[in-house]
Amino acid sequence: MTKAITEEAVTGVYGNMFLKTICIADLGCSSGPNTFIVVTEVMKAVDKIRRKFGRQSSPEFQIYLNDLPGNDFNSIFRSLPRFREELKEELGSEFGQCFFTGVPGSFYSRLFPTESLHFVHSSYSLMWLSQVPKGVEMNKENIYLASTSPSSVIQAYYEQFQKDFSMFLKCRSEELVSGGRMVLTILGRKGDDPTSKECCYIWELLAMALKQMVYEGLIEQEKLYSFSIPQYTPSPFEVKAEVEKEGSFAINRIEASEINWAACGNKFNLPHSFNDDGYNVAKCMRSVAEPLLIDHFGESIIDKLFHKYGEILSDCMSKEETKFVNVTISMTKKERMDG
Amino acid sequence: MTKAITEEAVTGVYGNMFLKTICIADLGCSSGPNTFIVVTEVMKAVDKIRRKFGRQSSPEFQIYLNDLPGNDFNSIFRSLPRFREELKEELGSEFGQCFFTGVPGSFYSRLFPTESLHFVHSSYSLMWLSQVPKGVEMNKENIYLASTSPSSVIQAYYEQFQKDFSMFLKCRSEELVSGGRMVLTILGRKGDDPTSKECCYIWELLAMALKQMVYEGLIEQEKLYSFSIPQYTPSPFEVKAEVEKEGSFAINRIEASEINWAACGNKFNLPHSFNDDGYNVAKCMRSVAEPLLIDHFGESIIDKLFHKYGEILSDCMSKEETKFVNVTISMTKKERMDG
Repeated sequence: MTKAITEEAVTGVYGNMFLKTICIADLGCSSGPNTFIVVTEVMKAVDKIRRKFGRQSSPEFQIYLNDLPGNDFNSIFRSLPRFREELKEELGSEFGQCFFTGVPGSFYSRLFPTESLHFVHSSYSLMWLSQVPKGVEMNKENIYLASTSPSSVIQAYYEQFQKDFSMFLKCRSEELVSGGRMVLTILGRKGDDPTSKECCYIWELLAMALKQMVYEGLIEQEKLYSFSIPQYTPSPFEVKAEVEKEGSFAINRIEASEINWAACGNKFNLPHSFNDDGYNVAKCMRSVAEPLLIDHFGESIIDKLFHKYGEILSDCMSKEETKFVNVTISMTKKERMDG
Repeated sequence: MTKAITEEAVTGVYGNMFLKTICIADLGCSSGPNTFIVVTEVMKAVDKIRRKFGRQSSPEFQIYLNDLPGNDFNSIFRSLPRFREELKEELGSEFGQCFFTGVPGSFYSRLFPTESLHFVHSSYSLMWLSQVPKGVEMNKENIYLASTSPSSVIQAYYEQFQKDFSMFLKCRSEELVSGGRMVLTILGRKGDDPTSKECCYIWELLAMALKQMVYEGLIEQEKLYSFSIPQYTPSPFEVKAEVEKEGSFAINRIEASEINWAACGNKFNLPHSFNDDGYNVAKCMRSVAEPLLIDHFGESIIDKLFHKYGEILSDCMSKEETKFVNVTISMTKKERMDG
């Protein structure tokens, strides 16, 4: 589904402008086997449209790979030569030159010069908040929103999302050219309730594993009470509301879709020997949450925690259908109204 | 001296174009305390000229930091937040936004889109060749050019320099806008003889340390015979000849200047406890040559080798004046002749 949206968006950019160089940013690129998936998809889409329009020469590609300064850019950069070869094999020598750069920094701040980008993509990154919201101490043993969360905590999470996401939109609106496109996929939810199972359950089960460890005396209760996941899983309606409030972008499409928890393992290219879905999902969540957990609880509890989490996940996934919700939005930067 | 040349070059770019964003590349930025020295100098020069010309608002800065993919970009990126704070303190809040990106790759290939750069700087990098020249086996126990080098070896080194440097010029001429500037500082020599002491002595002394270790049975003679430093230290005349042959650049200035070997330690911000110049220079050369030496001889000989080298350097520096030669060239990309 994202592929079709990306192609549509790329047609909007590349089909409507004559570009010698197309500047593409992937925000929250991470490092690992999936880093190049997004940019490959975008580049292929450009090439497909170029052929469709019968344009002789391919544009050059300026590819900006962004993540926080703590990301392992060295490993991305060292895997570039191999990636280039694969790309050449797949797309042929007609394909335009690609220039890769790493851009360290938070996407809740400016990262690029004014009007320097044509296409912005971000996948599974924008549910991460810039910080744990203030005033969530009342959430007790919950580590994210849950059905037992007080309304003040729900409000605090939502306000942090609004603040962060509107800052994101403002920064990108300055960096994109008029007519430039942005496609975002955010882990979210379909319904109105921010504490519903569709978005909170995965963290509730991790909280359950942590609680077991408190019970076993391996973690202090206070330590658990002071831990919160800096994430917010918005609904399409909430995403749309922020985009309209900020005002720089016209929405082309917004959709929610479901993906099985079990697919998480595929996404992360886990070895096939892991045949237990529960442990696969635990491994996948570990790659996401481990730095936060180590930072708060220390390294010593991690193996045990994810073993327990795997057990809980297996049990739960054998009994019910468990899905993540993707919210995908495609938008166009409006003409700037000067004066 | 380089500062004055940089200011002159920046005036040429920023004074003659109205730029909202000035795109600056530092080629061979390395990682460590000196990484930001060059770009700081360029940004300060822009700010000085902006004030001189009475322009209200500062341009934005797109800073491209380039080095080979093996460079430690992670450590550069992790030191960026602190560097930004220092920059803000020094240059004030009026100063334009700076966007830093890392660009992994060899500067003997294309690194940037066509006509995307305004200013290119490279400091102490272009004496490195893309590879050890073919046909230098006859150089025996010399590890670089030396007075005993056969003429075929001298020719092989020079041809590799010509090939590499002309490729460098070709790539940069495609990447710079017309009127864009380039300032290069290359370790070189003043005179015509490529085997003269002014450029070869520092390596001859390292070869001496290696020979001692062959004598002591710590290194096999064959191993030493097959080792060569992939460097060429050109004269201003040779640099000028390549620029003129390539044809895309007008030379504004070309100069050779001397710098004491002992200043090498200052350049690398070594702690003051190292009071012995010989060991400082050995340490400085170690930071440059260690990867090549480890690659060829293995890690085990390194400490001993640089201890010996330090002794040899101390002895020699106490007896004679020892200097490196910098060749600095400033040039402007000519208008493209279409058709």
